[in-house]
Amino acid sequence: MSNLSDAVLSVIHGRKSVRSFKDGGKAIPQEMLDAIVKAAFAAPSAMNLQPWHFIVIDNRSVLNALGDGLPYAKMLYNASAAIIVCADTKISELSWELDCSAASQNILLSVEAYGLGAVWTALYPQKELTLFVKKLFHLPENIIPLNVIPIGYPNGEEAPKDKYTPQKVHVNEW
Amino acid sequence: MSNLSDAVLSVIHGRKSVRSFKDGGKAIPQEMLDAIVKAAFAAPSAMNLQPWHFIVIDNRSVLNALGDGLPYAKMLYNASAAIIVCADTKISELSWELDCSAASQNILLSVEAYGLGAVWTALYPQKELTLFVKKLFHLPENIIPLNVIPIGYPNGEEAPKDKYTPQKVHVNEW
Repeated sequence: MSNLSDAVLSVIHGRKSVRSFKDGGKAIPQEMLDAIVKAAFAAPSAMNLQPWHFIVIDNRSVLNALGDGLPYAKMLYNASAAIIVCADTKISELSWELDCSAASQNILLSVEAYGLGAVWTALYPQKELTLFVKKLFHLPENIIPLNVIPIGYPNGEEAPKDKYTPQKVHVNEW
Repeated sequence: MSNLSDAVLSVIHGRKSVRSFKDGGKAIPQEMLDAIVKAAFAAPSAMNLQPWHFIVIDNRSVLNALGDGLPYAKMLYNASAAIIVCADTKISELSWELDCSAASQNILLSVEAYGLGAVWTALYPQKELTLFVKKLFHLPENIIPLNVIPIGYPNGEEAPKDKYTPQKVHVNEW
């Protein structure tokens, strides 16, 4: 194994859903936040259509307003930032969910690599949550928010899960 | 920046869709292939339902049979292996596309980290392609194959794209 594969696999396996943050939402260095967003753009997409948009939130009152309306994302109150992964459904009607999910995973792995923590809180396909965010940000009709990813300094409560299940690996046949 | 974030970001940005392989499908070391599959299991999933299954193919005739029926995956003839990412739609009716896409991205990044090459060739939501694979592997009704990811030794023809588009980054408002 190379050092590169060791590093990448350690981050892939070390990633966990971090829902509790410390340091009261201390700012994430701008260059780190920029790098995390840029990583999202490096995901593959069907026919290279790149149907994604990203709303980066680092304003306290916007983070709180988002938390107010999202029952499963109350950690936004203690988060330092958040990224909403959106899709332009006019650009890729059929595959935007897949493309934006791959982009989301790049975000989560970059966050983990920086020693930060994050969690994918789902909006789509829950209509109420999706609509709340669409209204809050006055999103155009063709823009669907897939998720909100709060990011912050993990307080160490969460550990990664070992989810490997050999019964789900099929070799050359089902 | 730490060495860890440097390594992970270099692999995220270095990943490219590799469609041409060299070395005539030379076998990938088993421990590498195992590690690539295990990385897929480390993805997050909605309510931690883990709706995925993986078919790992390293048998020449199975790779070729798959290539015969998939017009956009002819690189299977020269691939060393392939992974079909499948979903059990009974386990997660609404979010399996997202979960299995995150798992697919873990596969692609692990492959890149090992210096191998791969490409996400879509099955779902194309009915004919999905059906072909369902029949070839006699998949149960509730199992949907999302994609086929051929893996091999890249011949160096493909380079990563810089897809960063500042206009798609929105800060605190749309």
